[in-house]
Amino acid sequence: MGLFTKDIKSMNDLFVHQLQDIYYAEKQLVKALPTMAQKASDPQLKQGFLSHLDETKTHVTRLEQVFKMHGAEVKAVNCPAIDGIIEEAEEVAGEVEDKSVLDAALINAAQAAEHYEITRYGSLIAWAKQLGRNDCASVLQKTLEEEKAADKKLTTIAESKVNMRAAS
Amino acid sequence: MGLFTKDIKSMNDLFVHQLQDIYYAEKQLVKALPTMAQKASDPQLKQGFLSHLDETKTHVTRLEQVFKMHGAEVKAVNCPAIDGIIEEAEEVAGEVEDKSVLDAALINAAQAAEHYEITRYGSLIAWAKQLGRNDCASVLQKTLEEEKAADKKLTTIAESKVNMRAAS
Repeated sequence: MGLFTKDIKSMNDLFVHQLQDIYYAEKQLVKALPTMAQKASDPQLKQGFLSHLDETKTHVTRLEQVFKMHGAEVKAVNCPAIDGIIEEAEEVAGEVEDKSVLDAALINAAQAAEHYEITRYGSLIAWAKQLGRNDCASVLQKTLEEEKAADKKLTTIAESKVNMRAAS
Repeated sequence: MGLFTKDIKSMNDLFVHQLQDIYYAEKQLVKALPTMAQKASDPQLKQGFLSHLDETKTHVTRLEQVFKMHGAEVKAVNCPAIDGIIEEAEEVAGEVEDKSVLDAALINAAQAAEHYEITRYGSLIAWAKQLGRNDCASVLQKTLEEEKAADKKLTTIAESKVNMRAAS
């Protein structure tokens, strides 16, 4: 958020603000994912978190690229939404003892983060196109596809084994 | 969250905990939506927020029904994720002066809440089925469909006019 009120005056300002917001979010996820991988018991889930950590680092780099393409300063602003999502993930994970139930809780937590990113990238892409920045939109689109794929992969892991194991 | 650590011992506990979490989230949205409707300028968007307020009240009632069907106490637990999403919505909305840009920002904020709910209901439905509670799953499914429809409606409003107006 800006230091002054009413500092978003145009669609362009909103676009840049949202880039700064998701840049912060991606960087927070780079910090959170190793812990999630460490807590996961299912090997495929653990590996999934580690692969997504690599992807997330690429998403950070892509955002830096978009800032530069758009002539904006590479900058992060606090994003209370992702902070809340990560805080909740940590709280819930801290309360679960059973390993299989913990895996189910971790998947649920990770999917909340994925969905947050999916909605933010969705808006960013729509706004970039509206601003005539199809070049930025196409870079952001790559990340969006990876977030959607990560979300689907988590659903598959949950539904193919983790939920069943957790309920048994 | 519970008062004691490690108080989620089973998939059933996780299911009930998540019900309490989304129950809190829906009730927070019942409080937030009238302000969003008030801030919106586009009549269709304003009306959309008000219609979704009515739906959200129904979601609260449906959750109370699911708690009872499942023999669990109707109770809310703090949900830092939705608090973060709403806090961010209020912060961004407070920084935008232009009415069209504000509409675009409001849609983006509302979609973050919708996506949060979509992911939570998705997990709840999968867990309910795993727990042999198809009756609960089918009540939750109705809400999930409405959240998805609300999200799509917001995308349509954004892409058909709001984004274009905001960028002009």
